[in-house]
Amino acid sequence: MAKALELAWAAKGKTFPNPAVGAVVVFNGKIVGTGATEVCGGPHAEKVALEKAGKRAAGATLYVTLEPCCHYGRTPPCTDAIITAKIKRVVAASADPNPLVNGKGFTKLRAAGIAVEIGLLQEEAMTVNEDFFHTITKKRAWITLKLACTLDGRIADEAGVSQWITGKEAREYGHELRRTHAAVAVGRTTLERDDPQLTVRHVKGFSPARIVFTTGAKISKKTFFYRYAKEARGIVVVSGKGRKKIMRDSRSGLEYWYTGEQEPRKHLRTFTEMAFENDITSVLVEGGQKMASSFLEFGLVNRLYLFYGNKILGKGIEALRFSRGLALNKRISLKNRKTLLFGDTFGITGIPDNVK
Amino acid sequence: MAKALELAWAAKGKTFPNPAVGAVVVFNGKIVGTGATEVCGGPHAEKVALEKAGKRAAGATLYVTLEPCCHYGRTPPCTDAIITAKIKRVVAASADPNPLVNGKGFTKLRAAGIAVEIGLLQEEAMTVNEDFFHTITKKRAWITLKLACTLDGRIADEAGVSQWITGKEAREYGHELRRTHAAVAVGRTTLERDDPQLTVRHVKGFSPARIVFTTGAKISKKTFFYRYAKEARGIVVVSGKGRKKIMRDSRSGLEYWYTGEQEPRKHLRTFTEMAFENDITSVLVEGGQKMASSFLEFGLVNRLYLFYGNKILGKGIEALRFSRGLALNKRISLKNRKTLLFGDTFGITGIPDNVK
Repeated sequence: MAKALELAWAAKGKTFPNPAVGAVVVFNGKIVGTGATEVCGGPHAEKVALEKAGKRAAGATLYVTLEPCCHYGRTPPCTDAIITAKIKRVVAASADPNPLVNGKGFTKLRAAGIAVEIGLLQEEAMTVNEDFFHTITKKRAWITLKLACTLDGRIADEAGVSQWITGKEAREYGHELRRTHAAVAVGRTTLERDDPQLTVRHVKGFSPARIVFTTGAKISKKTFFYRYAKEARGIVVVSGKGRKKIMRDSRSGLEYWYTGEQEPRKHLRTFTEMAFENDITSVLVEGGQKMASSFLEFGLVNRLYLFYGNKILGKGIEALRFSRGLALNKRISLKNRKTLLFGDTFGITGIPDNVK
Repeated sequence: MAKALELAWAAKGKTFPNPAVGAVVVFNGKIVGTGATEVCGGPHAEKVALEKAGKRAAGATLYVTLEPCCHYGRTPPCTDAIITAKIKRVVAASADPNPLVNGKGFTKLRAAGIAVEIGLLQEEAMTVNEDFFHTITKKRAWITLKLACTLDGRIADEAGVSQWITGKEAREYGHELRRTHAAVAVGRTTLERDDPQLTVRHVKGFSPARIVFTTGAKISKKTFFYRYAKEARGIVVVSGKGRKKIMRDSRSGLEYWYTGEQEPRKHLRTFTEMAFENDITSVLVEGGQKMASSFLEFGLVNRLYLFYGNKILGKGIEALRFSRGLALNKRISLKNRKTLLFGDTFGITGIPDNVK
């Protein structure tokens, strides 16, 4: 199962809007086939592993990180393939919360006389696809907020300079985070000041979609975001009263998403719904202060990463600044906290307890 | 030597202005005597250990965390006691930078035919007395700055509430820090808002002296600081033009230190000198924002502790706010960084690279 999880993590980022799954076929104590979810529309992990195992799948055990599907989606059901291959036993890390599956896959396998065990390394398996499990039930995109700040909580100095606050290893991990999200988002101020590429430079993988939040629909044509809009999906999210709609600019290739909402809380909430409907199931928000603070203040952040570089500025742009400060007894805390160490930078991640 | 270091740490806080030293006498592979520095004026570690060893010291090895003294101070030289006890070999973790000793102790021992080895666990031994090594050469008090802040760098919410930002374990460690410093200091705003006791409640040990920084000489008589000024040394440090002087209020028992300086940088610098001259060799500064920021901005912090509680406020009082913000390429970094974990609070400590 550990091997299957490794395969799932490696596939993460290429399978949106599908979950990333790993599968391993074991016969007589030997691995005879491995697989991971391929890009959307391609075969699922189980099918890849079974194909590799070939005839040796008969009588073997299949380890899989998620309940095998039993419905016709973009591909035929995996349960059929498992039964056909004469697998004797299926060990699954977790059930699939997708209402189309949700235990039905296991039922179908058991009905075919296959032994089924559920729960091995469940917690780890749930983390790989925490975004997927969220979106499938909430019908909203999963939001990860990542902030790189100084030891005194600043994301830039007084002149707005922010490159670089954290060390190289932490920035590489930031690219790994981009790789495992369907989209990367920044506010317009950050776009114009830093002109970030929002690509996955330091690690191999697909480039996530790029999102910019703005109040008007104008985007500087000089930005990397505008110039390379055809390389990856580029989305401009526009707030303001009007009709909720999506327009596509054929010249630049950019999509313009109008949420029809002026009030920040409603605007961002609507965005998460539009994102889900348009196959952007997870978004890594990278700042700046305004975007980060709004998403967190309004309870829309599903996972927070804070990286602290080994720097003190004494003044500058605060990482977080809510429209209303919280009283100490009403503060946001992080659940399931984990600390991370990257050379001279340390980090913390967890789930904000105000998430809706 | 590990045992000797343990003894030194336990003695730390009771030996000011002397360094905390541990000593262990080993004969035939067995510990026959242990000792640590006693309160100022009492015997040194070596002498305690030698007395416990008695006749078994003859031909034995003495492990000691600091070079034995060779001069008459408040007590007679330890080198004489070592020679008289017929110790065969001395293993010292480090030399004593005190100009009165500084290798002369080793020379005297060697002249008496005793084998001397230096450097075992030197780094650890240097850390125990880093304040002492600093003061003996710089003639200024060692300043440790400790700040307890939220994940977003605030030390209090907008209403000024700061109890408690960090968890219980971290606060206990805060008391351990108080125990190992000669004095604990806060600014006047913190005194009046939080009325801190500045005592060592959670760990056994001596109560450090208490210091309050203020621009005027008036201190509220309702504060714990004022009411219990006779239990521990209570010092009011007053800035402003005039003559540098120390006055004692016999009624309250408080000392008033006038630095004669109005300019914050000079005021605090003069304070560190006055503290050293008055046997306050190390000061733990606990805030608030203004005191903490001034000490750090002016390069007077010898060691910084930052504790991050698992809380986000979004607004509030920033932990640090310099009079002039630093540009990112002129930022302060911490040297010799270490991370600490206390339940839901994590911490970082290191030496600011702007220290003078």
